[in-house]
Amino acid sequence: MIYFDNSATTKPFTEVLDSFIKVSTGYFGNPSSLHQIGGQAEKLLAQAHTQLAKLLGVKMSEVVFTSGGTEGNNLAIKGVAMEHKGRGKHIITTEIEHASVRSSMEQLAELGFEVSYIPVDKHGRVDPTEVKNAIRPDTILVSVIHINNEVGTVQPIKEIGEVLKQFPKIYFHVDHVQGVGKVPLDFYDCGIDLCTISGHKFHGLKGTGALFVRDGVQISPLLSGGGQEGRRRSGTENVAGVVAMAKALRMSLELREQKIDHLQQIMGTIKSGLKQLPEVTIHTPEKNAAPHILNFSLKGIKAEVLVHALEERDIYVSTTSACSSKRNAPNQTLVAMGVPADQAASSIRMSLSYENNQQEAEKVLTAVIDNVKRLREVMK
Amino acid sequence: MIYFDNSATTKPFTEVLDSFIKVSTGYFGNPSSLHQIGGQAEKLLAQAHTQLAKLLGVKMSEVVFTSGGTEGNNLAIKGVAMEHKGRGKHIITTEIEHASVRSSMEQLAELGFEVSYIPVDKHGRVDPTEVKNAIRPDTILVSVIHINNEVGTVQPIKEIGEVLKQFPKIYFHVDHVQGVGKVPLDFYDCGIDLCTISGHKFHGLKGTGALFVRDGVQISPLLSGGGQEGRRRSGTENVAGVVAMAKALRMSLELREQKIDHLQQIMGTIKSGLKQLPEVTIHTPEKNAAPHILNFSLKGIKAEVLVHALEERDIYVSTTSACSSKRNAPNQTLVAMGVPADQAASSIRMSLSYENNQQEAEKVLTAVIDNVKRLREVMK
Ligand SMILES: Cc1ncc(COP(=O)(O)O)c(C=O)c1O
Ligand SMILES: Cc1ncc(COP(=O)(O)O)c(C=O)c1O
Repeated sequence: MIYFDNSATTKPFTEVLDSFIKVSTGYFGNPSSLHQIGGQAEKLLAQAHTQLAKLLGVKMSEVVFTSGGTEGNNLAIKGVAMEHKGRGKHIITTEIEHASVRSSMEQLAELGFEVSYIPVDKHGRVDPTEVKNAIRPDTILVSVIHINNEVGTVQPIKEIGEVLKQFPKIYFHVDHVQGVGKVPLDFYDCGIDLCTISGHKFHGLKGTGALFVRDGVQISPLLSGGGQEGRRRSGTENVAGVVAMAKALRMSLELREQKIDHLQQIMGTIKSGLKQLPEVTIHTPEKNAAPHILNFSLKGIKAEVLVHALEERDIYVSTTSACSSKRNAPNQTLVAMGVPADQAASSIRMSLSYENNQQEAEKVLTAVIDNVKRLREVMK
Repeated sequence: MIYFDNSATTKPFTEVLDSFIKVSTGYFGNPSSLHQIGGQAEKLLAQAHTQLAKLLGVKMSEVVFTSGGTEGNNLAIKGVAMEHKGRGKHIITTEIEHASVRSSMEQLAELGFEVSYIPVDKHGRVDPTEVKNAIRPDTILVSVIHINNEVGTVQPIKEIGEVLKQFPKIYFHVDHVQGVGKVPLDFYDCGIDLCTISGHKFHGLKGTGALFVRDGVQISPLLSGGGQEGRRRSGTENVAGVVAMAKALRMSLELREQKIDHLQQIMGTIKSGLKQLPEVTIHTPEKNAAPHILNFSLKGIKAEVLVHALEERDIYVSTTSACSSKRNAPNQTLVAMGVPADQAASSIRMSLSYENNQQEAEKVLTAVIDNVKRLREVMK
């Protein structure tokens, strides 16, 4: 199997699963219980908080464990909106956000919030000046994706953060789900107040995630109850899951050290191979692109057809983000970039992990080239 | 180890962990992905929906997977409130709900909802007539716990459901977290519209749960995004977790068949043993009590002291619900039942599972009796 759909989800590392099992069997207590069985679980939970915080370069108290990226984004956006609506009801975001951000905004719009959507240029990039121009006296939140999940463009988070430093009352949320472990992001330096990550995107487990909430930032909890996670996210903690996530992040960051150049080489091979093909358009920009995502179209070839053709060779790629792919929704990011509809309809996303290698890249290239030839002949 | 704190959390069944690992390694795909790796995960997810629905006696489309009981309760309550607030802003609940229900109500109250809290009698039981009397033209939701987690009283869900059948526009939510696998509940027959369960309370995994949402009931999602779970709960699905939960529920229901009498016997042993002690008060009622929860006080003995004394014999019990135990909050249910503060402060909860046995019960009894003697002597 050649799995090139790591932006949809990744295969959990064996070590991550081992940790999960170890904690689930040996430390199954409820961290809130008074007795040792609870105490042991609580200790592991605190360790996971400390570890994750260290890996992200933040404080332990700033890490809130969630059930994933969708919850993190919903909690950050709705949490700020509901807590600070007294101060204003205007929010700024972009046209290329993940569905969990977009839908949160739509729900808030129904509650009377106003949302400004900043467009992107043809590379899928937001202009920080446009963010600045959109700011109003009643703006309370700016939410921007770090690495776009559909084409891989890196957003100018630092520059937007600079703009926002002049508006200290506006909170800055970043969806870092596709970036973490791949493209470094200094939360403090960029002036980020809230930042979302999701365990299953870096070989952790589905159903785990974290939201960075800078000390001093108040949010209204989406899930209230027992007051866990500093009252920001109630519910019995998935201790085994968060221990596993901390391990997955540590391993991913170590792999980054060792393998980022290798990953870039593999991606280079794929890109230059594809460029040999007639009538190919590469949507992922040359500059400001993440190392692991590549989006391209092959004229006249429907993306779904190619996905299934590759699958017959045990190669797995995708058309758009996983959650949009079944609904046959157009690739939002490409639309925002001004890519014509027919090209958008034939766009393929390949997303790599540090587990992939050069041979796989070559096999995938061969398979794409063969299939493109075959399909184009059939269509003649 | 003798673990008598199963209402706080349970130890996952080995078979449940095996399923989790099998799915996490062999079927790690994103169920929304177009290719087979996604398709296989989607199939497992659908099977888990079907299985869980069957075990709960409902339809597949009526099961929404969540991250646990807290999320289920928040989603049910806030989801109905936000979706139907146009019709009314009055909600009825009881004085003995879990923190996740109570806090959800408090958050809604801040948004302008009015909440009526129905009191309980000295057995911790709600009178359906009082629910009826609290109904107003603007009532949109009634939320009642099935098995109270602190003393184990069974609420008259069927009778409340009967009352509500005369008010078809009022939604009925039941927190079944402590009941599932222990005390049967026919969702349809009781006229329940929404019902919460949590995986880790029946030997499934933390971070898994489900909300029953009757066909036709509209709720506003707390987590919006990719539109998973019939648009009611977005986020990449924890496929391995829900497969594991379905297995845990199947096993728990099978164990119920085989062992419910045994569980009642063990509980009987403990109860009659405790009754031999001077100045003991059993708070769990004789009638309408769940088979697995026992709450009692020993005059003059602080609950925390006894918890720690038992712990030295490798016996684990609790003072109140896990999430309240650290905060030293009084046992809300006992307070609502009119139990004097000093008695409430000395209350101990033992909560059993089908894994416990008669020898354990006898050991626990001996340990309690020894310690009570010793502690009372010390205090003289
Ligand atoms: C950029 C981005 N944000 C958020 C999410 C949602 O994360 P999760 O799948 O953990 O809910 C995803 C992936 O689905 C994503 O790619
Ligand atoms: C009655 C009741 N409802 C809800 C919950 C919350 O469930 P979870 O721990 O899965 O968030 C619990 C347990 O903590 C409970 O006992």
